[in-house]
Order: sequence, then structure tokens, then C-alpha cells
Amino acid sequence: MARFLFSPILSRLKMRWLHLSAPTAAKVLASREPLFFPDEPREPVIKTAIPGPISKNAIKNEFDPIFDTRSFVLLADYEKSLGNFIADRDGNVLLDVYAQIASIPVGYNNSTLSKAARTEQMVDALINRPAPGNFPSHNWASIVKSGILKVAPHGLNQVFTALSGSDANETAYKAAFIYRRQQERGGKLAEFSDEELASCMLNKAPGAPNLSILSFKSGFHGRLFGSLSTTRSKPIHKMDIPAFDWPQAKFPSLKYPLEEHAQENEMAEAEALAEVEEIIDSYHAPPCAVVVEPIQSEGGDNHASPNFFRNLRALTKRKNVLLIVDEVQTGIGATGKFWAHEHWNLDTPPDIVTFSKKAQAAGFYYGNSDLRPSHSYRQFNTWMGDASRALLFQAIINEIESKNLVQNTSVVGDYLYNGIKSLAKKYPGDIINLRGKGYGTYIAFDSPRRDYFVQKARSLGVNMGGCGERSLRLRPMLIFQKHHADILLSTFEDVIRS
Amino acid sequence: MARFLFSPILSRLKMRWLHLSAPTAAKVLASREPLFFPDEPREPVIKTAIPGPISKNAIKNEFDPIFDTRSFVLLADYEKSLGNFIADRDGNVLLDVYAQIASIPVGYNNSTLSKAARTEQMVDALINRPAPGNFPSHNWASIVKSGILKVAPHGLNQVFTALSGSDANETAYKAAFIYRRQQERGGKLAEFSDEELASCMLNKAPGAPNLSILSFKSGFHGRLFGSLSTTRSKPIHKMDIPAFDWPQAKFPSLKYPLEEHAQENEMAEAEALAEVEEIIDSYHAPPCAVVVEPIQSEGGDNHASPNFFRNLRALTKRKNVLLIVDEVQTGIGATGKFWAHEHWNLDTPPDIVTFSKKAQAAGFYYGNSDLRPSHSYRQFNTWMGDASRALLFQAIINEIESKNLVQNTSVVGDYLYNGIKSLAKKYPGDIINLRGKGYGTYIAFDSPRRDYFVQKARSLGVNMGGCGERSLRLRPMLIFQKHHADILLSTFEDVIRS
Repeated sequence: MARFLFSPILSRLKMRWLHLSAPTAAKVLASREPLFFPDEPREPVIKTAIPGPISKNAIKNEFDPIFDTRSFVLLADYEKSLGNFIADRDGNVLLDVYAQIASIPVGYNNSTLSKAARTEQMVDALINRPAPGNFPSHNWASIVKSGILKVAPHGLNQVFTALSGSDANETAYKAAFIYRRQQERGGKLAEFSDEELASCMLNKAPGAPNLSILSFKSGFHGRLFGSLSTTRSKPIHKMDIPAFDWPQAKFPSLKYPLEEHAQENEMAEAEALAEVEEIIDSYHAPPCAVVVEPIQSEGGDNHASPNFFRNLRALTKRKNVLLIVDEVQTGIGATGKFWAHEHWNLDTPPDIVTFSKKAQAAGFYYGNSDLRPSHSYRQFNTWMGDASRALLFQAIINEIESKNLVQNTSVVGDYLYNGIKSLAKKYPGDIINLRGKGYGTYIAFDSPRRDYFVQKARSLGVNMGGCGERSLRLRPMLIFQKHHADILLSTFEDVIRS
Repeated sequence: MARFLFSPILSRLKMRWLHLSAPTAAKVLASREPLFFPDEPREPVIKTAIPGPISKNAIKNEFDPIFDTRSFVLLADYEKSLGNFIADRDGNVLLDVYAQIASIPVGYNNSTLSKAARTEQMVDALINRPAPGNFPSHNWASIVKSGILKVAPHGLNQVFTALSGSDANETAYKAAFIYRRQQERGGKLAEFSDEELASCMLNKAPGAPNLSILSFKSGFHGRLFGSLSTTRSKPIHKMDIPAFDWPQAKFPSLKYPLEEHAQENEMAEAEALAEVEEIIDSYHAPPCAVVVEPIQSEGGDNHASPNFFRNLRALTKRKNVLLIVDEVQTGIGATGKFWAHEHWNLDTPPDIVTFSKKAQAAGFYYGNSDLRPSHSYRQFNTWMGDASRALLFQAIINEIESKNLVQNTSVVGDYLYNGIKSLAKKYPGDIINLRGKGYGTYIAFDSPRRDYFVQKARSLGVNMGGCGERSLRLRPMLIFQKHHADILLSTFEDVIRS
């Protein structure tokens, strides 16, 4: 306990410990795992409001003249950040369970990544950036094979690399459109018609076809024009931006706790599937792919059952519509499996899986070589991927494997879930619709005071994020351990009591 | 001459020198500039066909199983590449005047960039990648101010950073749509209507408005769904991809040499402007911006006069339509000015200038703060820019400034242009429509045997690229010097004679 002695939030934490019976406290101490970051702060340090005076001054005078700063939460000092803790410019140190919108995989200033960033190979990747579709480095295949493809979803052995989640999804959509039109045209060898050649240059059908991507209500797939047309999260994401006339199906709205609403939820899922089928059969711009997140994240951490996804896979297969699983946020271990769709036990893999964020690289995996277009230069751009980021993903994978971090996330996730469940029992009006059981640390709940919750938690040293209308989403890194969960649980209780 | 003695292409180069009169040869030798890369190869080395047996084997066995390799030109060895010369896996070394589709600014393995890639700041940027819209690093503003913004086009003092040229253009388009709708709505403070809030979620007007971006025939602005809708280069870029029903105007088709066709060209430009005006006035999806490249690059290195662009600026201003200048390929010095649009001497700057490629970073510059949307999170994504690439751009700028590389490009460009002009006189059937006079090394010409020209040049040790239907575009780096131009000119002559 000595290490808490000089803490500004000592009383808060002490209270939590003092509430434990002696045997329980001993058990907690005894079960403490080996620390992934031995030098990590033991707890948050709060010295000022966030952002504090130094940060506020810099935001106003240095940042605001050149950037839109209204979405700034804090001004970070990444040199001083470590592991699960993010430091800011005013000396505050927060437990970070938002992790740059779920994109930091293995901790700030991770030493394995730091080593990878100092190699000659990294310098080469940074200063000699190729157009890999024309002049790939001879080592590009081996970087990809020992990194990106080493963790490829089962059944998908090829990749098209990209730069961001939006980019990954849009190139996946392009692959789907090209694939569908090639089928309609009679295969890869069939020639384009004169009408197609002329009309595509005018942005008109049949060259620019009236086909669509089907997405789900509340889904989020990015913010460029194609991806935003499939994003259905919030008006503020979509307002004033022209969009394709593409269809959306409702996503099953499950009731919690799941075990108490089994029949209702099953019906909701059946209804959603029926709507998907109807849209596929009758929408005026026929969908050539369905894109879906394993857990709708930005849209509110909305789950559906593995059974729903198995049925969706079967339905899309039957209808010759591609299934694109958007694992930009769910991928890379956070749900207690490397890919969230592993929870579904599919008979046949998705056609395409997109990735980004915690991979620090981006792209889409596929298995069917027919998803390579009929001609070269149809799926092409100058940079496509980025070898420097692929090298980083390689290091991330090594770190995950050597420290068994997916397993860690699964175990700590259970611990955290149970802790929140206990709090939800104690404060049923404050923690509602707890979800994510069995999905690692990918846990969320609703709160009637959501925005207050986020603000108050921050002021107590925990950086967390919201999603949907009134949800809090937990997105700790894969190095989040039980003692971090204890800080989090204690803070939650403080917020609720405040 | 001793240094040519053991060269496999000795005879070719020797011939060129031997053709010079003694005084001329002396002059060339005397005028030789200080070498930017003293250790650079003196000339290409060709040992095998390209790709050679080692490369071919690797492409087939290592690359093809995981990537689409049909667009591969060669398998590079970047460790062995230096300055203007790219090495491949079979020991070939080529003078590279294509430079990764015009994206390598200051040479392979540039030591200034290498130093920048080895700093602690770079390691930090790589391993602690923030979501800069929420948790920017405290040093982000200073990185941007001393880099990206240090070279901001005149009149544009703010930036939205992005990841690629497509991304830069699409976020610029979003800014334009939001700006227009805010004006229509009555300003930034005007509330969204219920109808807008509901309809945008359905991808329908008025929330997702029937507005457009006007682009020019043969223009190229990227390959994602919004940018591809403005791209009008070739069917193979657009085929099978749904596109917005946005308008295109013809780009003035100038005749060369310009001085001989002044009146005709002036008429072509007036016609194009009239069409722009007509589309703005009457197109069913009103354009809120015009996007234009200073030189249409992918589309064939098509030029228009400064006067055309001045009139386009005046017209868009008068019509309250934004002018977006796409400097993704033309920017960063290659035209003998830092930004190609500096050649126009505009009275008022473009509203938005987009950049990428040789910047190694990407984004759009703007000056009017009203291009920041009414609410936060409207122009937002997880990574937005990339500090590691911004640091690299900073180093590139330092290198350009300290070595006066824009000036170098202007001077060498004149030398190269004149050399090609002489060749065109000698071989008028092989070098047609030479263009780019006064635009640095941004030079192009047509050839009736274009594809053969590219192939043959490669086999003789020069890597170059085509564009449009039958054009060759030169895109040397900014460290391209007169002695490189001599190699290039000599090779051109060899190709033509072959």
C-alpha cells in the first residue's frame, strides 16, 4: 500500500482497499500478474483541470490559428506517457481506456515497437517510400508474410494494403463492385462493351453501375464518400455530404441481459435478416456486398449473436453477395480473440475482412483470387500501403504473441466485466445494458449521465470514450491488467457516487 | 572520361561525347554543377532484362501468391538505390525519372531524410500515433508550423492533414460541401432542420445534398469514391465503380508549339471557361467547387495558360464556387516553383490547395476560417494526418531550401527542355507536342511509339513513365542535374534510333 501514500487520489483508492475484507485484499495482492510495463505509473496523477492552464494556452495560441481544435480533449505529452497511461502537458497522468479511439495496441512507448522503429529497415521504409504496385521493394512480400499475413483470418490468404480504415473499406467495396460486374459480364476474360467504356467516363451506368453496398443502421465504416455512404451512425458524421443511394437494414436491437431476453432477441435477429434478404432481392440498386462490424462500435457497441452472423454468412452466400466484415475497431485482440469474427465459428470465412487502427497498418484480406480484378491498374494507387506501418504491425504481432496478450485480454476482460456487473447490481440506475461478456475488454454500458460520466472520470484520472447516444465504451489496450481494472472500477464507483 | 571506361553502356555515352566539338565538351565539363549526391552512380548499369531472372522468380513465387503483381515494373533494392538512381534485385541500376510516380522528392537514401528518420521525435511519432483531433501531441503544432505550413501557398495559412492525395481531395470536397450548405442554411450558427437530420441518415437530400464537384475532362484526382467521381482519365480507372452524377467540363486542348497557335489556344480556353460557367449555372446538381490540376498529369500532361487559370479563379469567385487546386503531383518544386499555381500570378489565392506525393505527407491548405465546419467532429477521423510523415516533409523542406532545389529544378528544367527541343527538331516524327517550357523538369511529349519508348528506355537504363494515351512524362526528382539530363537525352536518342 506504501506506493499510494503520496498520491493525490490516495483517499479514493484507499477507500476501495479498505472496503475489502483482509482475506480478499490479500487475494488481490497475491494474484497480481507479472507487470507488462514495470515502470508504468501505479495510478493516475491529477494536478489540474483537463486541459490545464498550460495546455489551454497552447491550444489557443499555437493550435487554434492553424487547426480546428474544438474536438481536442487534452494536449498529450507522449514522451512521458507509458503503457496504459497517457500524460498531458500540465503534468496530469491518466489511465487511458480509450487508447486513441481504440488504436493503440500494446501501450505507449512500448519497447518492442521502439526497437522496431530504430531498425535500418524502418529508416529505409520511411525515406524510400515506393509505389509498391509498380516498384515494390524486394523485401515487401516477406514483411507482409511475417506480419500482416501471419495473422490473416482463417481462409483469407491475400491482402490489399491501404492507409486507413476508410481507405481499407473503400478499396474492399471497389473489389466487390468489380467482382460483381465481372460475373455479370461473363467472367474476367469478357471484354468491356463500348457502352461501358463510354458511360463510365460520364459517371453513368452501365460503366459506373447502379449497384450498392448494404450496411446496417448505426454502423460506422468511415468518412470518405463511399465509406460514409455506408456509415449510419450520427447525423453529424453525414450532414451536408452527398451520399450514394445505398440501402441500410436494421441491426438487431438486443435487450440485456441477453439470457433474460433470449426469445425476443432471436426474433429481432430474424427480423433483421429478413430485411437484409428483402433488400438484396428488391433494392433498386442491387447490393453486391453486405458490410458489417462484429460489434457496432461508434454506433453504440451494439452486439448480435454468433448465430445472427452465421445466418448472415449463409444468406449472403446463397444470394451471391459478398460479406465484408469490418474489423477496423474490433480486430487485433481486443475482444479476446485476434479477430472478433472468430467468435462466430463460421463454416466458411467472410469474403473480405478489413483492418486498421490497432494494426497501425490497414487493408483488406481476401481469399478468392477472383477478387483480383480482370486487368491491372484497376485496384491501384501510388502508395497503397506503407511499409513503415507494416513493420510496426509486425512488431505488434510479435509483442502480442510473446506476451500472450490476446489471452490476457480475454482473462482481464472477464475480470473487468464481472467487476462492472457487481457495480451494475449496486447502481442499477447508473450502469445499464452492460454488454461484452466473453468479448475480452470490449465492454460497454449505457449511462443516463453519459457525458458527465466521461468528464468526471477524466477529472479523476481515467480517459474513456463514449459511443452511440448514451453509451460508454471501454477500449483498453491489450496490456490492460487486473490492477488497471481495479483502478477503473474504483473510479467508476467514484463517478457514480459523485 | 575515365569513369565511363568500364561501363556496359560505355559505347553509347562515349558516342554522345565524341559527337560534341572539343570546345563544347569542355564547356559541359566546366559547367558541371556541384554534385548533390557525390557517391551516386555516374550512369546506369544494365545487367539483365528488367525484371531479370532473380526478380522474376521472386515475383512469381513470393509476391504473386499474396498480391496482384501484374503492374510490377521491377523489384527494387532500395538499400542499393541512391539519389536519382534506382537499383533492382538483379543488379541493374537505372536513372529514375519517374520517381515512384513523381513522389520521391530529394533522392533515394537522402542523408538529410535519413537523419530525420533516426530522431527520437520520429520514433515517438511512429510508436505513439495519436488521434490528433482528440489527443494531439503538444509538439504537433510546431511540427506543422515548421514544416507543412512553412511552405503553405500564399494566402493559405491553415491545414487539414490527411494520408494520401485521394484522402486530401476528398476531405477538401467535404469542406466545400459543408461550406456551401452552411451558406444556404444561413451561416454557421443556423440549426439543422429536422428534415436534414432525418434525410442525411437515409443518404437523401436535403441532408445529403444533390450538390457536386466540377472537374475537367482528362483530370485525375484519386481513386476513392468521391475523388474517382472527379477523375476523368481512363476507363480502366473508373470501370465498374459507382460514381456520383457530377459534371465535367472540357479542359482546353492546346496546340504546340504554343507560340504558333496563340489565337487558337486562346479560343480553346475561352470555350472551356464558357462551359464551366454554363455548368455552374445550369447543372442539375449544382457544383460547389471546381477542382483542377495546374497541369493534368495522369491525363496526359495537358497544360493551360496562366491566363486561363486567372479567369477560372475570377469566374469561380464571381459564382461563389470554391476553387480547389489539386497540387498532389505538381506541388513541391517540380515545376520550377514550389507550387505550380505560383506560375499563374493570381490576384486572390485558390480557396483550397491539396498536396501529397513529394510532400510525403498529405492534406489541404485553406485560408478562410469559414471552411472549418460549424460543429466539431464533422471533419474528423482517427488518424487524420501522420506526424512521422509531417516530420519527413519538414526534412524535405529543409533539404530543398538549403540546396536551393526549386531553383535547381528550374535551371535544369530549361536545360533539359532545350535538349529535348533539339532532339525534336532532329526527330520530329518521334518527339511530338513537346511541352513544359518554363515549368522546371515537368516536361512531356507525345510519341507514336510510346509504350515501346518506355520499354526500350528501361532496357537502356532509364526508368520513365507514360501518361494519357501516347505521352511520356518526365518526373525527375528535385536533385536531377545537368549531367543526369545528358544521360537522359543520350538515351532518348538511342531509343529513337533503335
